[in-house]
Amino acid sequence: MIAVLKNGVTKAQRDNLVKWLESQNVRVHISEGEVQTVLGLIGDTSKIDIDLLSGLEIISNVTRISEPFKSANRRFHPDDTVIEVGEGENKVKIGGGNFCIMAGPCSVESEEQILAIAQSVKASGANMLRGGAFKPRTSPYDFQGLRAEGLQLLMKAREVTGLPFVTEIMSASHLDLFADVDIIQVGARNMQNFELLKELGRSNKPILLKRGMSATLKELLMSAEYIMSEGNENVILCERGIRSYDSYTRNVLDLAAVPVLNGLTHLPIIVDPSHATGVSRLVRPMACAATAAGADGLIIEVHNDPVHALCDGAQSLTPEQFSDVARRVNEIRGIMNW
Amino acid sequence: MIAVLKNGVTKAQRDNLVKWLESQNVRVHISEGEVQTVLGLIGDTSKIDIDLLSGLEIISNVTRISEPFKSANRRFHPDDTVIEVGEGENKVKIGGGNFCIMAGPCSVESEEQILAIAQSVKASGANMLRGGAFKPRTSPYDFQGLRAEGLQLLMKAREVTGLPFVTEIMSASHLDLFADVDIIQVGARNMQNFELLKELGRSNKPILLKRGMSATLKELLMSAEYIMSEGNENVILCERGIRSYDSYTRNVLDLAAVPVLNGLTHLPIIVDPSHATGVSRLVRPMACAATAAGADGLIIEVHNDPVHALCDGAQSLTPEQFSDVARRVNEIRGIMNW
Amino acid sequence: MIAVLKNGVTKAQRDNLVKWLESQNVRVHISEGEVQTVLGLIGDTSKIDIDLLSGLEIISNVTRISEPFKSANRRFHPDDTVIEVGEGENKVKIGGGNFCIMAGPCSVESEEQILAIAQSVKASGANMLRGGAFKPRTSPYDFQGLRAEGLQLLMKAREVTGLPFVTEIMSASHLDLFADVDIIQVGARNMQNFELLKELGRSNKPILLKRGMSATLKELLMSAEYIMSEGNENVILCERGIRSYDSYTRNVLDLAAVPVLNGLTHLPIIVDPSHATGVSRLVRPMACAATAAGADGLIIEVHNDPVHALCDGAQSLTPEQFSDVARRVNEIRGIMNW
Amino acid sequence: MIAVLKNGVTKAQRDNLVKWLESQNVRVHISEGEVQTVLGLIGDTSKIDIDLLSGLEIISNVTRISEPFKSANRRFHPDDTVIEVGEGENKVKIGGGNFCIMAGPCSVESEEQILAIAQSVKASGANMLRGGAFKPRTSPYDFQGLRAEGLQLLMKAREVTGLPFVTEIMSASHLDLFADVDIIQVGARNMQNFELLKELGRSNKPILLKRGMSATLKELLMSAEYIMSEGNENVILCERGIRSYDSYTRNVLDLAAVPVLNGLTHLPIIVDPSHATGVSRLVRPMACAATAAGADGLIIEVHNDPVHALCDGAQSLTPEQFSDVARRVNEIRGIMNW
Repeated sequence: MIAVLKNGVTKAQRDNLVKWLESQNVRVHISEGEVQTVLGLIGDTSKIDIDLLSGLEIISNVTRISEPFKSANRRFHPDDTVIEVGEGENKVKIGGGNFCIMAGPCSVESEEQILAIAQSVKASGANMLRGGAFKPRTSPYDFQGLRAEGLQLLMKAREVTGLPFVTEIMSASHLDLFADVDIIQVGARNMQNFELLKELGRSNKPILLKRGMSATLKELLMSAEYIMSEGNENVILCERGIRSYDSYTRNVLDLAAVPVLNGLTHLPIIVDPSHATGVSRLVRPMACAATAAGADGLIIEVHNDPVHALCDGAQSLTPEQFSDVARRVNEIRGIMNW
Repeated sequence: MIAVLKNGVTKAQRDNLVKWLESQNVRVHISEGEVQTVLGLIGDTSKIDIDLLSGLEIISNVTRISEPFKSANRRFHPDDTVIEVGEGENKVKIGGGNFCIMAGPCSVESEEQILAIAQSVKASGANMLRGGAFKPRTSPYDFQGLRAEGLQLLMKAREVTGLPFVTEIMSASHLDLFADVDIIQVGARNMQNFELLKELGRSNKPILLKRGMSATLKELLMSAEYIMSEGNENVILCERGIRSYDSYTRNVLDLAAVPVLNGLTHLPIIVDPSHATGVSRLVRPMACAATAAGADGLIIEVHNDPVHALCDGAQSLTPEQFSDVARRVNEIRGIMNW
Repeated sequence: MIAVLKNGVTKAQRDNLVKWLESQNVRVHISEGEVQTVLGLIGDTSKIDIDLLSGLEIISNVTRISEPFKSANRRFHPDDTVIEVGEGENKVKIGGGNFCIMAGPCSVESEEQILAIAQSVKASGANMLRGGAFKPRTSPYDFQGLRAEGLQLLMKAREVTGLPFVTEIMSASHLDLFADVDIIQVGARNMQNFELLKELGRSNKPILLKRGMSATLKELLMSAEYIMSEGNENVILCERGIRSYDSYTRNVLDLAAVPVLNGLTHLPIIVDPSHATGVSRLVRPMACAATAAGADGLIIEVHNDPVHALCDGAQSLTPEQFSDVARRVNEIRGIMNW
Repeated sequence: MIAVLKNGVTKAQRDNLVKWLESQNVRVHISEGEVQTVLGLIGDTSKIDIDLLSGLEIISNVTRISEPFKSANRRFHPDDTVIEVGEGENKVKIGGGNFCIMAGPCSVESEEQILAIAQSVKASGANMLRGGAFKPRTSPYDFQGLRAEGLQLLMKAREVTGLPFVTEIMSASHLDLFADVDIIQVGARNMQNFELLKELGRSNKPILLKRGMSATLKELLMSAEYIMSEGNENVILCERGIRSYDSYTRNVLDLAAVPVLNGLTHLPIIVDPSHATGVSRLVRPMACAATAAGADGLIIEVHNDPVHALCDGAQSLTPEQFSDVARRVNEIRGIMNW
């Protein structure tokens, strides 16, 4: 960490600062330039609060050189993390060159619905099922999901198809209900629900952590760090679009986040083109683009019921559309692996 | 709600849609134009999912005319909500022409610290104390607050000074600890932690709800609605800056949100200039500007300890600076009340 | 266009508004609902100023149903526009299924440099040369380009290699110098320099119009409309990243803009992964992703000079890297054309 | 400027870099830490291209310590710049403790209109007239202003009322027409039209430079620098709202920009609450807030014609509303000057 002092800082002020920094267990290397005095902070600076330091009257600016994330940092763990779920022929690996397609409905609605979709997406190449039981909705008056019953239906679908599944948790108090879930998803709105993250860090379930609505990549990694620092290293990151100002798509899918994260961390990174765009006709191009950008997997919404298609989300694919996407994605995957 | 059909929609498709809409308990008024067919949805459309409707293949676009928030809506509750806390000469009213200044340290650190600051800000014109016991920090390695002990110290400070206090909750599982808190704060990161909001809606404590990092005003109001729809109508909104792209300030303080919210809702709206800017020298101009914009109150960070001032946040005022801010704010308040 | 009146609007106010709207050559269809009165505006509403209408005291909200762009609108011109430049074996087509790769240095620096790069990128699969002669720099103290001399060197490179070229214009007063340029680029900073756009609309040169730093897609199309409404229909759109809040990349490349624009307009759309990311190692994944998203072409920075590589931009590829990108892009192109 | 090398950089690479930096006329101070090697660049680093340097393979990151703007920098010119226009009793000073209110219609429409408004706003306390003759409109089909004729009408209004005026230029080729204008405005869309800025830098007219739609404060100052580096030091900065994601206001008015700019530069800073919000009822609170934030002046839209009020912009005040704003603003100004 590099801290630059303002002009005119007195020796007493500087010494006071250095003393305090040393009390935080970092060593300080002072470099007095003609124009500026620069302090180099050496040692474990991950616990120094950069906002606090930057805000001091006598400081001009502060630059963190080493990243504040440790467990998630590729520098300290060069090899890709590979997450494994499922068993036997339905075993799925995510990361380290293994590609995973999670597909399923926005919400679990009935046994008939979830079984039909699970069978359909399995046939088209998905290796995991997704489906919402607990649904975070902007409005308290919108459908909040089947909750515990939805989890039961997902387990039923897994029993029938063998597909492991991922589903979202909204409160640590529900953790018992999630004991038999394959991957627990933390949604964008809870990315900085730190008490929830800590609880999940104490479980041994793989966690799918979605990027918050306007989270920086560093904040996403620090939230992963909350989980990992409690002992659970099985974290999958998910880019799902960030807030922006245009209204043609729900969010802006930030695909450069994929190779950037891949440089910063050893954790797998998947992409959600359905929620990012909110428009079904954009799912195919964005799923293909995400794969070309180097994602380790995709999570895609698929509906199956022509009778109720009317009520299906704008962003869901039909099974036929999903099958087409899966085929192209696999081909692109091949090209990127040259 | 107005839904415009795409060109070329068949009668069968249209009838199918109308039938579904009617099953949602709205009446549909069809207006066939030369160019476009427009459906007017009449009745309680607050439960219609606008994203879902917009996404249908046959829909060109949808406009919600009535706002989806009910309890928070000024249209249905024209009179300002006034929140009351504290007792006797320390009673504080917020909203409805009553102005409130909450001041105190970022984190509660010790009995000595919180007592000294509480006495100091009371003398300078604050009518509530603020202080963090549970601290949401981006990094798991940063100081997480004194937690339960911090709450005890805040109660001690209230006992000594009479000042009611506001402090942040991070998990519904801590609610018991907050039984004797005057106002419970929900931080920006938890604005859409819906399970927490619902729990708070079942308590009768006033809630200070901070706007999320990139929340729209409608989302903020819908989060208030989560609390109110469970029965707790004592919600105070707080503008605290939104994410943007410049680095001179931590966030962009969106002061126009104050008069906009004031038109949309009867709930009080306060402003946090300390967290919004992250720079102490900007707190005075932004506190004055917020007052001129019509805020019902301010929440300001103040530190008091010259010995440790070095470690105090960049955004905290000294008691002297705070006293100057409070004086000016009161004068501006007078001008705005003409 | 749909305008919804506020509650409580008097008949006189409504009649006054209708009269004014009719004076703007639109017919008005009034639909009085139980709750709201809705005006349907029929006819050519492209000249109605939506901001002005929305702002009237008596209006609740306004929704434009038909897009305000005409010449660029796919609805009125369903077939893809194909732009042609160059001659003989060096003829290049852009749009309508034809893919174009423009490559070259950020700035033209010398004859030796531009010739070497032009020959190199041609050998690796580029079909157009790019290079800056007039350079828009944030700082007046940074290198502003070789200007007229740079244009001469680009023509020289074209003479030697046959490659047509694209280069940026910064002022209509330079138009004479651009008489022999193949495609004239309008940079992001000038996307709404309307006087320049009108001048270019009076020429017959193909124009490469880059999206402004935070332009909506509608604004980009309206800027294309400025050029087209003056008679020049040869416009190519370019997505080059939008401003956001993270600092790992220079901008956020909004790849969903490609299929969205493709639905709205018949104009070709290319992508600039070099400027969008500002990081050379991200150019390959983003070039491949852009192709998978359906772009009609790419514009990529390439440098060639190992001796001065040090000073080359962070975002430039070496010829070897470019060659690898071109190969993969062509393969992905094949998959997307299934 | 501080440049931090990546781990594993060889001595040869480092020496190569240092040699190149020295060729750019800066001295390099090397500080080898245990973990990182840091280069301190001493001398005139304003000409070092930070993007280029940051992008080098061997560089971890670069921090500019001294700001890249010189002429606009308060560090080198501590005293406030004061701009003077007008004559005799109509002389107006802007900056250095002098407050200026510019008011008038969005567009100049007729002699009758501009004279009436000019007289009205003068009576209510405006000391300058504003009015658009050349209008930048998103759509080529919207009214583009009276152009040269509009300028004549503004001069007529000045002749009658004595009020100096400000009006927008859209192309350097119109400069002759602006010879008798008091202050030339550069709109947000042309903030980085560098060729225009350079031309204006060669004139001696005061320039009102509006912040671009998503410009950083540094970019705004660098654009001022374009004008100043050509010799014209009479620049007034204007905050007018930045692009964001909410739709209740047209833009987000970034009032913290006022005190931040005031710390960085000696140039006057005014605020445009009309364009920022786009809603007339928000102009009063935002004008008052801007004044409380420390602005050196305001630019406000006022219409005067009840017959055509219907067609007046959503954001314009009536003369009565303007008069009320002016009174409150003057009172707040008094409080801020304590």
